[in-house]
Amino acid sequence: MDTLHHTTQALRLKDTHTRFVLEIEYCGAMFFGWQRQDGFQTVQASIEDALLQVIGNKNRDCLNNKRIIVHGSGRTDTGVHALKQIAHIEIPKTIDFDPDKIQYGLNYYLQDSGTCIVKIGIAPFDFHARFSAIKRAYRYTILNRRAPSVLLLERAWHVRHELDLEKMTDAANLLIGTHDFTSFRDTDCQAKSPIRTIESIDIIKTDDLIHIDLAAKSFLHHQVRIMIGTLQKIGSGRYPPSTIVNILDAKKRSAAGPTAPAFGLYFKNVIYPDSITPDILK
Amino acid sequence: MDTLHHTTQALRLKDTHTRFVLEIEYCGAMFFGWQRQDGFQTVQASIEDALLQVIGNKNRDCLNNKRIIVHGSGRTDTGVHALKQIAHIEIPKTIDFDPDKIQYGLNYYLQDSGTCIVKIGIAPFDFHARFSAIKRAYRYTILNRRAPSVLLLERAWHVRHELDLEKMTDAANLLIGTHDFTSFRDTDCQAKSPIRTIESIDIIKTDDLIHIDLAAKSFLHHQVRIMIGTLQKIGSGRYPPSTIVNILDAKKRSAAGPTAPAFGLYFKNVIYPDSITPDILK
Repeated sequence: MDTLHHTTQALRLKDTHTRFVLEIEYCGAMFFGWQRQDGFQTVQASIEDALLQVIGNKNRDCLNNKRIIVHGSGRTDTGVHALKQIAHIEIPKTIDFDPDKIQYGLNYYLQDSGTCIVKIGIAPFDFHARFSAIKRAYRYTILNRRAPSVLLLERAWHVRHELDLEKMTDAANLLIGTHDFTSFRDTDCQAKSPIRTIESIDIIKTDDLIHIDLAAKSFLHHQVRIMIGTLQKIGSGRYPPSTIVNILDAKKRSAAGPTAPAFGLYFKNVIYPDSITPDILK
Repeated sequence: MDTLHHTTQALRLKDTHTRFVLEIEYCGAMFFGWQRQDGFQTVQASIEDALLQVIGNKNRDCLNNKRIIVHGSGRTDTGVHALKQIAHIEIPKTIDFDPDKIQYGLNYYLQDSGTCIVKIGIAPFDFHARFSAIKRAYRYTILNRRAPSVLLLERAWHVRHELDLEKMTDAANLLIGTHDFTSFRDTDCQAKSPIRTIESIDIIKTDDLIHIDLAAKSFLHHQVRIMIGTLQKIGSGRYPPSTIVNILDAKKRSAAGPTAPAFGLYFKNVIYPDSITPDILK
């Protein structure tokens, strides 16, 4: 439905508007998540406000007094960071839009906000940051040592007791593939179907850091953090790796482990089909 | 002279005191450098204050009402980070000192201060954090891309124009070895001799980040940052790599490039002779 609506709208605006893609970085600690919400500092609202300063105010007529909406590839929760979030905007062709100048202007207004625009470029008109995505990648970082870290404060989950990577890897392998992930989604999750396909989970340890890289076309609400909270319990020896099978079968949130903290999670990348991938993302 | 004094003092305290080594991490942005200075938040003072809370106050008699002094391997300036700073302390044998409990207590008092104790362990009595060091390693990180980074704010030097790594490497190779580094030290530098021996400079690029790893027995005041500021000018094409020879020959500070910002610099490691390296550092 959404995709159909998107296609219809795209056809309608194609002759009058140009689509631009934004590559965005943000520090989750500075925001109440991605999505605009009245009264809260969010990433989407911050960038939309900066767009108002840089192009909105002086082009009110071309924009019919409407805000330029930033369409993200997906929402992230309060505290979750982004190394590479992707979004698109639609700009009327009547507006003089130089990507380099606009990027410079936006970053000027976003100074000290906790987000910045890493790249801006033209996108094909049938590119949609959210609906065109074929893969999303996240990284979760655990600091696994006795002592805390000041340089990784709010950048990693500090787990004091040693985690067993072999057990975590065995458990992760049972999550890969297509499953009903009811046990691994927040009870408030709005997605129609709890079925998702996890493409890969790779666990890499360097010194005291455990990086867990996950990829799927899309994830359910809190799915990555509940999977990580469960893998952490298994790595601690609390449950054997085979528990994953029972948790999946149970199809209830209470069967899985706790939701891991948001600040260890990084939105890492989005992949689109080659044919519509904007040049700046290649 | 200092070393002789150290040895004499060590012999005097050997029967009554135990030496402990601390591995310390800190975020330079939170401190006015390492060294205790009245009225300023420094790393040394913060850890000494925490020691007062954890063991000082309840052992006033054993300590003859004196503070426990934290002897660092070297000072760092305001803004400079430490991944692994090393220090030692001397504790009277009459005090019950359980390293694990003390570490936990110190990190409790140091919460949100910007520094933490990564490890504590016993050191041989002839180990001195500063005088025993045979090698110090620093890392300097440059973010080399148009856009700033919010996740690396105050963690890397942002250089917008592309740097030529080959030129920087050629120039770095001319700094390696034993030279009179008068041109590369702050005019306030107190060291008796401007002669130093740079053991290695390795330049590694990963994505948008350029890491420059440097090692020497010791460095002059601001030496690393002036070398980096000069390498950056050479990488920008402002001067050819061979300029390094002229700068060294000039033996005056104004011949070299600017001092690179402190917040890109990380104190990375200290190496001691095998025979006296404390177990926790092995």
